[in-house]
Amino acid sequence: MSTFEPVLIAGSWRPSADAQDGFRANDPARAEAIGPSFPVSGRADIEAALRAASDAADALANAAPSHIADFLDAYAAAIDADADRLVALAHAETALPAEPRLRSVELPRTSNQLRQAAQAVRGYAWTDPVIDTRNGLRAHRAPLHKPVLVFGPNNFPFAFNAIAGSDFASAIAARNPVIAKAHPSHPATSQRLAQLAHDALKASGLPASAVQMLYHFDNAQGLALAGDTRLGAIGFTGSRAGGLALKAAADKAGVPMYAELSSVNPVFVLPGALAERGDALAQEFFNSCTMGSGQFCTNPGVLIVPQGAAGDAFVHTATQWFAGSPPKVLFSHGVQQNLARALADLLAAGAELLAGGDSATGYQFQPSLLLVDGEVFLAHAQALQAEAFGPVSLVVRSADVQAMAAIAAAFEGNLTGTIYRAADGSDDAQWQTVAANLRARVGRLIANKMPTGVAVSPAMNHGGPYPSTSHAGFTAVGMPAAIHRFTALHSYDGVPDALLPPELRDRNPGGVQRLIDGHWSDRDITA
Amino acid sequence: MSTFEPVLIAGSWRPSADAQDGFRANDPARAEAIGPSFPVSGRADIEAALRAASDAADALANAAPSHIADFLDAYAAAIDADADRLVALAHAETALPAEPRLRSVELPRTSNQLRQAAQAVRGYAWTDPVIDTRNGLRAHRAPLHKPVLVFGPNNFPFAFNAIAGSDFASAIAARNPVIAKAHPSHPATSQRLAQLAHDALKASGLPASAVQMLYHFDNAQGLALAGDTRLGAIGFTGSRAGGLALKAAADKAGVPMYAELSSVNPVFVLPGALAERGDALAQEFFNSCTMGSGQFCTNPGVLIVPQGAAGDAFVHTATQWFAGSPPKVLFSHGVQQNLARALADLLAAGAELLAGGDSATGYQFQPSLLLVDGEVFLAHAQALQAEAFGPVSLVVRSADVQAMAAIAAAFEGNLTGTIYRAADGSDDAQWQTVAANLRARVGRLIANKMPTGVAVSPAMNHGGPYPSTSHAGFTAVGMPAAIHRFTALHSYDGVPDALLPPELRDRNPGGVQRLIDGHWSDRDITA
Repeated sequence: MSTFEPVLIAGSWRPSADAQDGFRANDPARAEAIGPSFPVSGRADIEAALRAASDAADALANAAPSHIADFLDAYAAAIDADADRLVALAHAETALPAEPRLRSVELPRTSNQLRQAAQAVRGYAWTDPVIDTRNGLRAHRAPLHKPVLVFGPNNFPFAFNAIAGSDFASAIAARNPVIAKAHPSHPATSQRLAQLAHDALKASGLPASAVQMLYHFDNAQGLALAGDTRLGAIGFTGSRAGGLALKAAADKAGVPMYAELSSVNPVFVLPGALAERGDALAQEFFNSCTMGSGQFCTNPGVLIVPQGAAGDAFVHTATQWFAGSPPKVLFSHGVQQNLARALADLLAAGAELLAGGDSATGYQFQPSLLLVDGEVFLAHAQALQAEAFGPVSLVVRSADVQAMAAIAAAFEGNLTGTIYRAADGSDDAQWQTVAANLRARVGRLIANKMPTGVAVSPAMNHGGPYPSTSHAGFTAVGMPAAIHRFTALHSYDGVPDALLPPELRDRNPGGVQRLIDGHWSDRDITA
Repeated sequence: MSTFEPVLIAGSWRPSADAQDGFRANDPARAEAIGPSFPVSGRADIEAALRAASDAADALANAAPSHIADFLDAYAAAIDADADRLVALAHAETALPAEPRLRSVELPRTSNQLRQAAQAVRGYAWTDPVIDTRNGLRAHRAPLHKPVLVFGPNNFPFAFNAIAGSDFASAIAARNPVIAKAHPSHPATSQRLAQLAHDALKASGLPASAVQMLYHFDNAQGLALAGDTRLGAIGFTGSRAGGLALKAAADKAGVPMYAELSSVNPVFVLPGALAERGDALAQEFFNSCTMGSGQFCTNPGVLIVPQGAAGDAFVHTATQWFAGSPPKVLFSHGVQQNLARALADLLAAGAELLAGGDSATGYQFQPSLLLVDGEVFLAHAQALQAEAFGPVSLVVRSADVQAMAAIAAAFEGNLTGTIYRAADGSDDAQWQTVAANLRARVGRLIANKMPTGVAVSPAMNHGGPYPSTSHAGFTAVGMPAAIHRFTALHSYDGVPDALLPPELRDRNPGGVQRLIDGHWSDRDITA
């Protein structure tokens, strides 16, 4: 067993108890294995992690919020201080650019997200205290008193990492232990983050078993774990097929699973916007589609433009951008294979290839632009809105705004939908027509901006209707709302003040914002 | 087809298109059929209801909140004005007492609940507007733009009726069309409510297809409907077996189902409270257990008392109350049969019968008290916490507070948990010990009060951890929180003011409470 890197369980790094297999990271740029061997955990590791996390659940639920916040802040500071090493590891394992992506964008976003979670903890913002003095009832959101299982995706080694991302920060903020399942495409990055988390945890006074991390386990083990009633909830970011299989297991056990599954993030360009700045939009589109090699949940996978000369010019310019681009490095052979298959499926469904279409050496793929007429899209809407994860986008030519509206109505649930409108408002009637169909099908409606780029904000919705996520009512990003996923509603009926949680007591020394008899305030309650 | 009462679809009362079977209500007191024949709808009725509701979804989502609120208020007023007739119908179909239960408690609660929903609509309280001026992001809760299917239970002909209860009020408040599946044990009551709703709807200016009602359909049709992706969500109150079957179908389709399934509502009596008023508690317990013939979701199904003289005296007094009671009338032969079976199962699992245990003529059942020692309860906790829906309760004798804590930890998810403590605070250390285990297992923690009685309050939680409900984060009762179940989170990113929903615009003439840059206020946003 000692040939594999240790796993983090119950507050210590220990050899895997039962790994039969190991795996190594790949350098995507050169398609060759790098770094040490990490264990593929079996039932013994998983059971040990689940027991340790369960044992810590009550103690963590009863921990002082200040200790939780201190831990999150300390971990954030450690991530910032370790930026050189983290960026080097992540760059080696993902081939994402060290600058600006990893160092200047994703890493600060990750530590900032942890700090926003700490802030939400200090101000009790996620607890939504509600007080009804007339009926003697008080309610708030509370910890689950059970572990949260987090599955991290391949595409954000920091910001969505199972041991450092929004799911992690949210679960811990709500005082739930975490079992992090790292993504096997960046194990050394995850290990380093887990070391920083572990060190911060040791100094925090929180239970040692608040955080466990396993690098990998097979699908059968994952399904068994997802269906274990000892879990309080699951956070998942990944593929639709994998996510739905886990969700079926979790559903059967009554375990809420918050899954971010897939999205093509349709972008509608209205005629006025096209006339105003079509060439610039073509470049913006190309940049958004190829940034991070197109491996974003919010990648603009489908863009709808008007037919006619301006639309043709847009398509021409965009084609030049795509055709002139060097190939992009993908995370893995699997991503490359899936992308080639997805592109072939789009072509088979009636799309025409304008640029790209080829794999290249290693895990590379040529940025690819496809075209289809609106009527064809509507006739094969299901096949033509399948996600192609990578630098591939489909342009749909639309006869008029009514056709755009029909196309909008043909989309299933997505994370985002974008409409480009003219700055002078001349498109706004058409905006209303398109938005009337698009709004309910997306979590975030965007004006005049490509969908890539997800601000960590209280008003963000990084979520959307099924099947983009498993529940249209929740967001995976943005504090305090993302924390709500990992909470239970607790009501107190006639319970004396001294026996209430701090944020529900009469006196409110911390100035917590509370809904008292229908009005938000930070006041004390006086007889 | 004309032999059956008409169903309500697409704004009109029409004959069932395909009912092969009909059914009549039963007078539970005399166990004989009463009233007209109602249709058991088939696929054609269901499909027509689903299409009509779907067709109305966008229009209803875009309706003015004032129209929604006016409808809810008008419907509430109509219910109050029709009280004589409604109470007579419900009494005949359920045998619940006309006074005080139906007329003075449940009917005013129902109309008041509709009015509270209207108030939440007028003040936009359910929309939780969040504004981040720095990032140009605004978010709120929005309609699902899809119909909500509501399954009403047998035990509240008004307050949880599929066409008048909290699920109905919540779904309409969030501007979603409703397909109400009435409970077949009170079809004429449901029909009368639907007539009042229909009349109020006609006067409201809302889409005619905002509300449909079917009286009944078989399980196979129910499963097919629950798994239809055209639904936005499902509200369900009923049995665990039926609810979980529907939930499995809904989960597979990605349709959120909010199910209230089962609960035994454990009540712990601490020694000081017992010494202070044991006899009064025994009577309170009996009253709560037998009120409404024990057919409450929040019925005290298990009560835990200390061993010893005071506990023995409590059990003796309670036994006398149960033994001295006349039999209680249940809703149906099915309820009677299930209760006899559940009681037999409790006895087989080790409980001793202290009083009752017998069915009586018609649908009657003798209030029944059972006893078991704490050790036996812990050894067979699963079997001994099975819900017996009706006037049956189990007393568990507990050696000490540690044993009480262990018993609390053995409960699965419940709607409520109650702890009786001494008025002088002498029990409070023991409260903490018991509550530490009970709190996370219940939705509402109650002090010194039996669990029956659910106030319609913003701080109510009529919900609880699985398997008492399908999701620990939501309540089925209490405005505005109950409305949240039937909403989607919508974010707006960089969208100009004029294209935002009213409650997210800069100007806030209605004084909506909004979370602006981390602070709740009713202010305008100024540049």
